Amino acid sequence: MSERGTLIVYSGPSGVGKGTLLQPYLAAHPQARLSVSVTTRDPRPGEVDGIHYWFITQERFDRLVAEGGLLEHASYSAHSYGTPRAQVEEQLAQGRDVILEIEVQGAMQIKRSFPDAVFVFILPPSLEELRRRLSGRGTEPPQVVEARLAAAIRELEYAKEYDYLIVNDDLQRAGAKLEAVIAASKCRAAGMLDYVERMVHCCEHA
Amino acid sequence: MSERGTLIVYSGPSGVGKGTLLQPYLAAHPQARLSVSVTTRDPRPGEVDGIHYWFITQERFDRLVAEGGLLEHASYSAHSYGTPRAQVEEQLAQGRDVILEIEVQGAMQIKRSFPDAVFVFILPPSLEELRRRLSGRGTEPPQVVEARLAAAIRELEYAKEYDYLIVNDDLQRAGAKLEAVIAASKCRAAGMLDYVERMVHCCEHA
Repeated sequence: MSERGTLIVYSGPSGVGKGTLLQPYLAAHPQARLSVSVTTRDPRPGEVDGIHYWFITQERFDRLVAEGGLLEHASYSAHSYGTPRAQVEEQLAQGRDVILEIEVQGAMQIKRSFPDAVFVFILPPSLEELRRRLSGRGTEPPQVVEARLAAAIRELEYAKEYDYLIVNDDLQRAGAKLEAVIAASKCRAAGMLDYVERMVHCCEHA
Repeated sequence: MSERGTLIVYSGPSGVGKGTLLQPYLAAHPQARLSVSVTTRDPRPGEVDGIHYWFITQERFDRLVAEGGLLEHASYSAHSYGTPRAQVEEQLAQGRDVILEIEVQGAMQIKRSFPDAVFVFILPPSLEELRRRLSGRGTEPPQVVEARLAAAIRELEYAKEYDYLIVNDDLQRAGAKLEAVIAASKCRAAGMLDYVERMVHCCEHA
């Protein structure tokens, strides 16, 4: 019953439809915020600084790491990515839910510092379907698709470290599950024990 | 993703509104079943055998206990109550969700034999409000109300053993939480790991 927002760690393999699934949730919950990561890579066409990423230099990134300014960080393809701590802490303190769409390695870092966060992993209906979705983009040669599929299998090894697994077989059904999981996470006993304690304690002194 | 139903253990102090909260849920989910307990007490006016309870003799009750035919059992006010195992197992196997509205002692017995069950505890907004609700029935003398309130405080000690705590402050809001909690429990990672395992394994042999 804390006024503090909930931190939602949201992961799943490339191509599983994480972004598409999240859009209706964010539209329906204007108080929730998708965290904007920092990255050292260059913006792609259409990407806007402060919306898709904060685009920063490697030097600034390294300074953020040294100062403990990132909740998690990782490198892929010679570029660095991370979640700015101040922005997340501030929004949680304002009572906003914050969603971190991050890779499994970053999620494991969050788990150590935010054990109360809710960890949600999006699964494909099958690996065949994931391969179809990755190929369906039509922009990548087959060996890139197979490499991504292999990466997806490695990520699936981490699914057991998450609290909830949602199969994205149907956008509406999976969206309802995402709604349910986030709402239910606010009823988890661990987060409510202070409330119970205060209630009982209050009575003893009544 | 098992076809098996979910066992929902549903508890909370007398007067908290468990039954009222459950009615809309059961109406909206015709596949879910409220388990009917056995009891050795006599039917009260209006109570129907097989609907409110199965009314049985102490001899039959003792035989059920001896045969392991009860999932949990307990005694209150010189009467015995229990949950028939066969009925619950059969409904779960048919893919139906089964709700056990039982006291905390019985719930702890279920926890040992059904670790995958989802444990939901309904909280009053405050003990003052619970006292009002217990008095509001107008049928009990004040000392009975105070005794029930003391019993409620003892039950609240067990809240931390449950998975989810729902404050019944508003019927619609608490009902939405109950919906969310039961839906989310079907996405818990522990129940989904076989699915992930099969998916990865399936690909290795593709």
